[in-house]
Amino acid sequence: MIPFAEHLKVVLVSPRNPLNIGAAARAISNFGFTQLRLVNAYDVAYREAKSAVNASAILESAEQYANVADAVKDCSLVIGTTAVGHRELQHQLQRLEAGAREIHGHLPQGPVALLFGSEKFGLGNEEMSYCHSLLRIPTRAEHESMNLGQAVAVCLYELIREGDAPNYASPTHTDATGEQTEMITSLLLEALNRSGYASSPSTEFKVRRMVRRLEMSQRDAHVWLGMWRQILWKLRQHS
Amino acid sequence: MIPFAEHLKVVLVSPRNPLNIGAAARAISNFGFTQLRLVNAYDVAYREAKSAVNASAILESAEQYANVADAVKDCSLVIGTTAVGHRELQHQLQRLEAGAREIHGHLPQGPVALLFGSEKFGLGNEEMSYCHSLLRIPTRAEHESMNLGQAVAVCLYELIREGDAPNYASPTHTDATGEQTEMITSLLLEALNRSGYASSPSTEFKVRRMVRRLEMSQRDAHVWLGMWRQILWKLRQHS
Repeated sequence: MIPFAEHLKVVLVSPRNPLNIGAAARAISNFGFTQLRLVNAYDVAYREAKSAVNASAILESAEQYANVADAVKDCSLVIGTTAVGHRELQHQLQRLEAGAREIHGHLPQGPVALLFGSEKFGLGNEEMSYCHSLLRIPTRAEHESMNLGQAVAVCLYELIREGDAPNYASPTHTDATGEQTEMITSLLLEALNRSGYASSPSTEFKVRRMVRRLEMSQRDAHVWLGMWRQILWKLRQHS
Repeated sequence: MIPFAEHLKVVLVSPRNPLNIGAAARAISNFGFTQLRLVNAYDVAYREAKSAVNASAILESAEQYANVADAVKDCSLVIGTTAVGHRELQHQLQRLEAGAREIHGHLPQGPVALLFGSEKFGLGNEEMSYCHSLLRIPTRAEHESMNLGQAVAVCLYELIREGDAPNYASPTHTDATGEQTEMITSLLLEALNRSGYASSPSTEFKVRRMVRRLEMSQRDAHVWLGMWRQILWKLRQHS
């Protein structure tokens, strides 16, 4: 229904309830999208969802991944969804209305991942570290947390609703892929490690976030990678 | 969350599935509404929904009616929801976006009923006859029918969403100073040099430009500087 709908990858991270997986697939189909990805899904849940009456083609063709890194590898924009307030956020946080505009602007360029956390815990800090920004559905403060299937439906509806004309202006640059930014992240982490940088358990998440905040272009990412490889090659010689 | 939210009566007609009744109640609570009415609900379903863990106050206080006429008696605007196309409509039919505007305009005046039909059949002709108009969620023609709980969530979201949502939550981003970016540039240049990176006369300009294109915040620049200093310290030890 919207241009480049196939570029949107709805990613359910650690879903546990087959009904929710099925509901997400149904909303994807209702609103004219096609792509569902499951990360670390509870196997029984996925099997049950697939065997349900009316299980959709979308569910059948859902892609399974072991972790978030793999699931967003081909995506140059990764947006997480969250019920705000229950953890410290180091991310840009925007309301769904604004987040949808960002997604609209990006879809013509390439794949965009929209992440939903598990029913119980939402997205964890590590999972969020792969996100460029977070969006929140504007639920009321006293009862923020939405049902997973309903949250997916509301987000996809916002993407297809009429009104604010989406901005399809051609992008000024092509954003780095998830694979590139992750490669830079690991080169940087190794360099820090080999240099004796005082790291804490959260350093990895922090660095991953910082690299994504740089929002580099694919072309620049390519050059940065070359530089980092050279520096790391040197560091490896002496440690 | 919106003025006169208590004037909106969400009416489920002949719901059969306790999960859907619970999901509708949850969405009502999520989006700051309070009133749920059940018409001809399957008793077992309502009892099960009420006894579920996390059953909400909204579910507890839901009002039961034997028919639509009674359920909408106090409402001066009655709007039905439908998946269009499968029956002859003698009603004004509008997309959700327009329907929500009509509801908004009416809430200050008095109670408005928003009707959802049963999971299997939607609203029947008699039930629709109580409606002033119908709205439809803009699902795609090939897969129109939505899950009941998701349909309620999407409609209520449309009622509370902001038109031109300003990006309230986004942190103010203070750009790095020229001094910071230049310091990062020189640290990076020295690291490249000490690593034997094949540089040309233009490398310096290129790196300076690339660092500026990253448009980092002051806060991030501070952290990057710390990391780069450590890496450079290590490289200096061995060359």
